[in-house]
Amino acid sequence: MRLGTVLYILGWFLLFFAAALLVPAAIAFLYGEPLTPFLASAGISALVGLGLLLSLQPAKDIGYREGFAVVVFSWTAAGVFGALPFVFAGYLGFVDALFESVSGFTTTGSTVFSSLEHLTKSIHFWRAFSQWLGGMGIIVLSLAILPLLGIGGMQLYQAEMPGLTKDKLAPRIQDTARILWGVYIFFTLLEVLLLLAGGLDWYESFCHAFTTLATGGFSTRTASIAAFGSAYVDYVIVFFMFMAGVNFTLHYRFLKGDFGAYFRSEEFRFYFWVGLFGLLICLIFNHGRIYQDPLENLRYSLFQVWSIMTTTGYGTADFDLWHPVCRLLLLNLMFFGGMAGSTGGGIKQVRLLIFFKFIGFQFRKLIHPKAVEIVRYDGAKVPNEIVQAVLGYMALYALVFMGASLLVTAQGIDIITATSAVAATLNNIGPGLEGVGPTKNFGWLPSFSKLVLTFCMLAGRLELYTVAILFTRSYWRGLRWPVFRFRHVSERRDPFR
Amino acid sequence: MRLGTVLYILGWFLLFFAAALLVPAAIAFLYGEPLTPFLASAGISALVGLGLLLSLQPAKDIGYREGFAVVVFSWTAAGVFGALPFVFAGYLGFVDALFESVSGFTTTGSTVFSSLEHLTKSIHFWRAFSQWLGGMGIIVLSLAILPLLGIGGMQLYQAEMPGLTKDKLAPRIQDTARILWGVYIFFTLLEVLLLLAGGLDWYESFCHAFTTLATGGFSTRTASIAAFGSAYVDYVIVFFMFMAGVNFTLHYRFLKGDFGAYFRSEEFRFYFWVGLFGLLICLIFNHGRIYQDPLENLRYSLFQVWSIMTTTGYGTADFDLWHPVCRLLLLNLMFFGGMAGSTGGGIKQVRLLIFFKFIGFQFRKLIHPKAVEIVRYDGAKVPNEIVQAVLGYMALYALVFMGASLLVTAQGIDIITATSAVAATLNNIGPGLEGVGPTKNFGWLPSFSKLVLTFCMLAGRLELYTVAILFTRSYWRGLRWPVFRFRHVSERRDPFR
Repeated sequence: MRLGTVLYILGWFLLFFAAALLVPAAIAFLYGEPLTPFLASAGISALVGLGLLLSLQPAKDIGYREGFAVVVFSWTAAGVFGALPFVFAGYLGFVDALFESVSGFTTTGSTVFSSLEHLTKSIHFWRAFSQWLGGMGIIVLSLAILPLLGIGGMQLYQAEMPGLTKDKLAPRIQDTARILWGVYIFFTLLEVLLLLAGGLDWYESFCHAFTTLATGGFSTRTASIAAFGSAYVDYVIVFFMFMAGVNFTLHYRFLKGDFGAYFRSEEFRFYFWVGLFGLLICLIFNHGRIYQDPLENLRYSLFQVWSIMTTTGYGTADFDLWHPVCRLLLLNLMFFGGMAGSTGGGIKQVRLLIFFKFIGFQFRKLIHPKAVEIVRYDGAKVPNEIVQAVLGYMALYALVFMGASLLVTAQGIDIITATSAVAATLNNIGPGLEGVGPTKNFGWLPSFSKLVLTFCMLAGRLELYTVAILFTRSYWRGLRWPVFRFRHVSERRDPFR
Repeated sequence: MRLGTVLYILGWFLLFFAAALLVPAAIAFLYGEPLTPFLASAGISALVGLGLLLSLQPAKDIGYREGFAVVVFSWTAAGVFGALPFVFAGYLGFVDALFESVSGFTTTGSTVFSSLEHLTKSIHFWRAFSQWLGGMGIIVLSLAILPLLGIGGMQLYQAEMPGLTKDKLAPRIQDTARILWGVYIFFTLLEVLLLLAGGLDWYESFCHAFTTLATGGFSTRTASIAAFGSAYVDYVIVFFMFMAGVNFTLHYRFLKGDFGAYFRSEEFRFYFWVGLFGLLICLIFNHGRIYQDPLENLRYSLFQVWSIMTTTGYGTADFDLWHPVCRLLLLNLMFFGGMAGSTGGGIKQVRLLIFFKFIGFQFRKLIHPKAVEIVRYDGAKVPNEIVQAVLGYMALYALVFMGASLLVTAQGIDIITATSAVAATLNNIGPGLEGVGPTKNFGWLPSFSKLVLTFCMLAGRLELYTVAILFTRSYWRGLRWPVFRFRHVSERRDPFR
């Protein structure tokens, strides 16, 4: 592990980050709001970034181990430096600001604000913009970086994008990123136009398009999407939530003219049917109980099921008042999440699909003990080690879920609130049940719980192993400390350090 | 699948079952209580059994597929015919009686009775005796039959008992059974003596020794073990619950003079430390909140942690009033259960141990992608397919848990009650939380929920795949219908049927 190289890359990251902070500063200028929170934050980011760039000497190329650290350090830095505007604007203390900022960059959407209307437009914009940037990061992470790092079966997507190979990492990632971001920006602008057509103003259209495509779920309104009270807006947003939960390479293929791309994907079909199944259950149990009118039932059930499953977390109804089976179902759907390669969180549809196939495989193995059975996915057989990686991923997921839930309950939080808060953050959804339900917020939780949940957001977003591996001793074995330029020259140039 | 052979074996089973029903009949005679419920049930069992024996012609030997059906049919038959005394005594309707009876033979200990003191002594004895018989069955099932059927990694225990091999199934099972039952009876009698020394009468000593060794948890008192109000009794029972949760081959080795047998077993050490960890957390969070006196705290926390983890389910304290972290911890410990080869339920300690090792293995694999890593257990490497079987077992467990929870909540039961009821029955524990907490019972649940939970008890006890495989189509492919003796002779003798 060449820590110096990792920090050098982080330096560049912070420079770009400072540039990103100028966008909400421009919005503040436009609306005549204070510029200081953003300019000060941008200044600090730029200074730290420059400091790292000037004092470190990077290695020519980065390896496999450095990859993990770059990913985790970048997201953590985005969380930390992105928290500064909330602090400088005087809205939040640092722990709360960190929670809110990490909730943004991980596209979670859990908030500590009990009401949103008193925030300045520029701070709102920063919340939405941070989710949009986080969504961009996630697409590239899941389709270009994780497959190379071999995390949790993401190797399935290794050949997904043209020419993605292990050697020559950087240029390929750039190519992949360019293509995918094009699609991402296209959908964002499309949603902006459709929301404008629904009567929203430019500002709110952008804010909500940003957080829909990122499956983030931050809204400019305390009542979330319900505030607009428009069926048209609801359906537009459902459509884009659905799209945001789809692997972006499928969108790319579709836009290139391959119209069968979606339904040819086994994961897409699974994603589609799981959502439809959830919708059906909610429709049945809400009918006559919560909604008398079938159309109203459809509108709210459809919205809530896809909002939760794609891990967006927008609300148009207080689903915490729904029938217990709907609440438990939504709690389960939280773990399904989006497809791999989407901006959605959760365990990812493909992993659950392979999980179910693996159970079937075990049955066949019991009935025909000597037959060599395999798990097939998308028409090809899945190598055994990828199946194992998927199972290992889910195993660690279960472990982190239980560990974090115990830590939160240890502070006296009741079981449903605690477990649903962990589920909502680990899966990057937003709201949970009971004390952190859709009409509540995370502000009242003890600071320690907030930090645990902040960790969950990061760990869930970065697919667990990326983060967890940094806590193992063997990862750090062979650590090369950074060589700072102000050290003695002969030491710096030592090629073996 | 030769269904005729399976039913023929079931015929023998029912004859033995009828004989077992004569024991509570004798108790009824002793205490001057009505004999009819037991004699009528015994008569019906014997008649059905004889009918099957006389009209069916078995194959010479039973195969692999027949094994699954024999196991599932026997336990189901025990549940159904064991329910008759409750019905004939006029205490319960059939669904409730079935729940109570299956709860007995699966050594679960969940009850539909809101108070127990009004039951006759002979019915109490039948409840306790059914658990004791169920415990006997489980020991042989898990150490002699499941390893041969290849269920969920139990192949680990294939070589555990001397000379257990796939060929010559029946005589080996008998040898194994004789040895293990000797140990089981020895511990039962030892506990009877120690309980007698604590001031319990013969009758209650036997009833509680039966249900402790079976990790069953049925008591003759509504207040469970708390009714005796004796620290001595509590500690005696904790000791035997602990022992009942240990693999009985370890007891056998210990009694043969191999005093290091326990701590040489990696699973035993895991079982020991997991329980100790749970105890520590409960001690900390109960201290000063629930119990002021450290000794009192130790007594109740120790009892409850081991009662839940070994899946016994006796109560000396209402742990549903404990701190949320203790309640969630106990809910988690429910899944750990006893060691494989004990009478305890749950997922089994060894599977969780391998689960944790597998997570570690995935970490090592990420850091050293090319290294061929393996999971080691008890000093030997675990074949890949056994690790997969363990993971597949846990995957199906999670699936059944969620499916059953959804079915129970669908009837309007709240989430904590529903999920803890499923956890308590699937893991064969007894009490859950909230509506089915330690001071409550299962009697108020809707009939459909009771049937779902009855299924959970059976599925959990028989290690899921045994039951689940009977629901697959390919298991029944090649089914040979029973040849009844009253059919035409030439058809009966057809060797290819």
